[in-house]
Amino acid sequence: MPSRIAIVGATGAVGAELLAVLQQRGFADAELIPLGSARSAGAALEFGGRRVVVGELTEASFDGVDVAFFSAGKDVSRRFAPIAARAGAIVIDNSSALRMEPDVPLVVPEINPDDARAHRGIIANPNCSAIILAVALWPLHRVNPIRRIVVSTYQAASGAGRRAMIELETQARDVLAGRPPQCEALPLPLAFNVFSHDSPIGPDGYNGEETKIAAETRKIFHAPGLAIAATCIRVPVFRAHSESANVTFTEPMSPGRARELLEKAPGVRVVDQWSPQHFPMPIDAAGRDEVLVGRIRTDISQPDGVGLNLFLSGDQLRKGAALNAVQIAECLGAVNAPARV
Amino acid sequence: MPSRIAIVGATGAVGAELLAVLQQRGFADAELIPLGSARSAGAALEFGGRRVVVGELTEASFDGVDVAFFSAGKDVSRRFAPIAARAGAIVIDNSSALRMEPDVPLVVPEINPDDARAHRGIIANPNCSAIILAVALWPLHRVNPIRRIVVSTYQAASGAGRRAMIELETQARDVLAGRPPQCEALPLPLAFNVFSHDSPIGPDGYNGEETKIAAETRKIFHAPGLAIAATCIRVPVFRAHSESANVTFTEPMSPGRARELLEKAPGVRVVDQWSPQHFPMPIDAAGRDEVLVGRIRTDISQPDGVGLNLFLSGDQLRKGAALNAVQIAECLGAVNAPARV
Repeated sequence: MPSRIAIVGATGAVGAELLAVLQQRGFADAELIPLGSARSAGAALEFGGRRVVVGELTEASFDGVDVAFFSAGKDVSRRFAPIAARAGAIVIDNSSALRMEPDVPLVVPEINPDDARAHRGIIANPNCSAIILAVALWPLHRVNPIRRIVVSTYQAASGAGRRAMIELETQARDVLAGRPPQCEALPLPLAFNVFSHDSPIGPDGYNGEETKIAAETRKIFHAPGLAIAATCIRVPVFRAHSESANVTFTEPMSPGRARELLEKAPGVRVVDQWSPQHFPMPIDAAGRDEVLVGRIRTDISQPDGVGLNLFLSGDQLRKGAALNAVQIAECLGAVNAPARV
Repeated sequence: MPSRIAIVGATGAVGAELLAVLQQRGFADAELIPLGSARSAGAALEFGGRRVVVGELTEASFDGVDVAFFSAGKDVSRRFAPIAARAGAIVIDNSSALRMEPDVPLVVPEINPDDARAHRGIIANPNCSAIILAVALWPLHRVNPIRRIVVSTYQAASGAGRRAMIELETQARDVLAGRPPQCEALPLPLAFNVFSHDSPIGPDGYNGEETKIAAETRKIFHAPGLAIAATCIRVPVFRAHSESANVTFTEPMSPGRARELLEKAPGVRVVDQWSPQHFPMPIDAAGRDEVLVGRIRTDISQPDGVGLNLFLSGDQLRKGAALNAVQIAECLGAVNAPARV
């Protein structure tokens, strides 16, 4: 029996990547139910060689659905995820709406697959920057607990959605032609610029993205005392995020030992060649499943070798969103394909 | 009597900015002696409304010169800076050749002008990323000594020279047209990408740029014990560097106190508006003299409020190079204009 898979927000950047990942990972025979707003309904998509038409999301959309991937923003998830779960679907929610709810597991399958298995109908897919950081640091944390992370991000346009990716291109053409760049999907000019992530700023001065990285990493790692200070910056890159991480461990951790642990870690690819230099870059991470990790070196600002600096790049749409969501479904056996994690 | 000012490397990106800064700051009447390689010699420049022809740099070039700005790379500085100094010129060297020599002051006029006055003929202009960081942190350090800095940079193409700036533009056009970007001035594709700064990597895993930031900040601050771990990343921006700095002080430092200190600091402009958000961006810093500082917030990963996070942007060619060099000349009274620092 093929699975019945609903995708809420099928026409967005993550939705499109979900279709691609599902087909690449052997789900082309599944019955796909793409769902969207009244505006998107009627759009035609291709899946497994078949033409599939986007249906309008309603309370009745989830009858008989095995797995429902949500990627249509917080408000849609808040309203429809419980409805889908009550209808018997396993919800894998890419929005931030329910991630910090105590009864909603927040899962990166390489790290905490058991949390997924303890779900009550809804599983949250973490924030893209948090996933990429967590995949890279977990293999180190599990043998030598991390006490503190200072991370600065280099985030791609894709994190702001498909329209932002297109707008980056339009802005770049405008700047090159001597025209002022227009901002509709993006809050500020991104072409040939960088800017502080525009999520709302809390009373502590951290924006939403920075707060998510901290809170979500702690939840995924089951490490409530892990101290994290993030600075989130948007850069003119299309679809892979990069991060500069400064990490303090409980015990000394040599770069050689870290490299050894990372080389055998699932979902990680060490790219750390000094001569000729070859390190993680977003154009290399784009379209790939693994998080690229390199520039692994002792933090010379700390005594006793308890700190490391690392630089990483990971595809925001794949491991940062769609791939991780599909892996969650796989590790539950919620879709008819062998679990791969 | 107008000053006689030599510029070695007058046709480069920093050289061109030196001409602009000198004219803007009242030196249009100086006698300008642009110097370059045999290849550049003969090129015509405009200065103070006059046409000036680039001469070939020789050992005799500095007779009667008051101030010689060097911006033609380490090898040229190593060979010709001592010759210029012996000829009686005050050398202000933008290369890294002599910065760490004990008898060569390394100067940011807002910070250590007295060091400049103790020169023995040669004064070094610091690395661009180091200058921008130092200007932003000195007003805090002088009242509450900084113990540790973790900094990640977002560095513009201009730091790799004029050809790199042009190549970024060409690469962007190629990518937008679906052509593979070509790399000649830049080591790797920069358009729609970021990459680890390509300066040579030392045995500790830090590249030359990262090592300069650490060593030079310590020298400028007279703080040999200041711990600094830098990660230097090139981003597709034309001419202003940005930096994400995580700073640990000796005593607690509130964001409000930091803002207050920075607001009255010379060379700094606080851009730290939460709603609507307005923070430092390279396109705002480009062409400006001040270093923009914002995202000033307590480092929540440290106890007791001893840490701050900040984000800054500064023009790499102006304060990061040409402006700082001219300010050094001004604070020495080495050129005929009032000191401005």
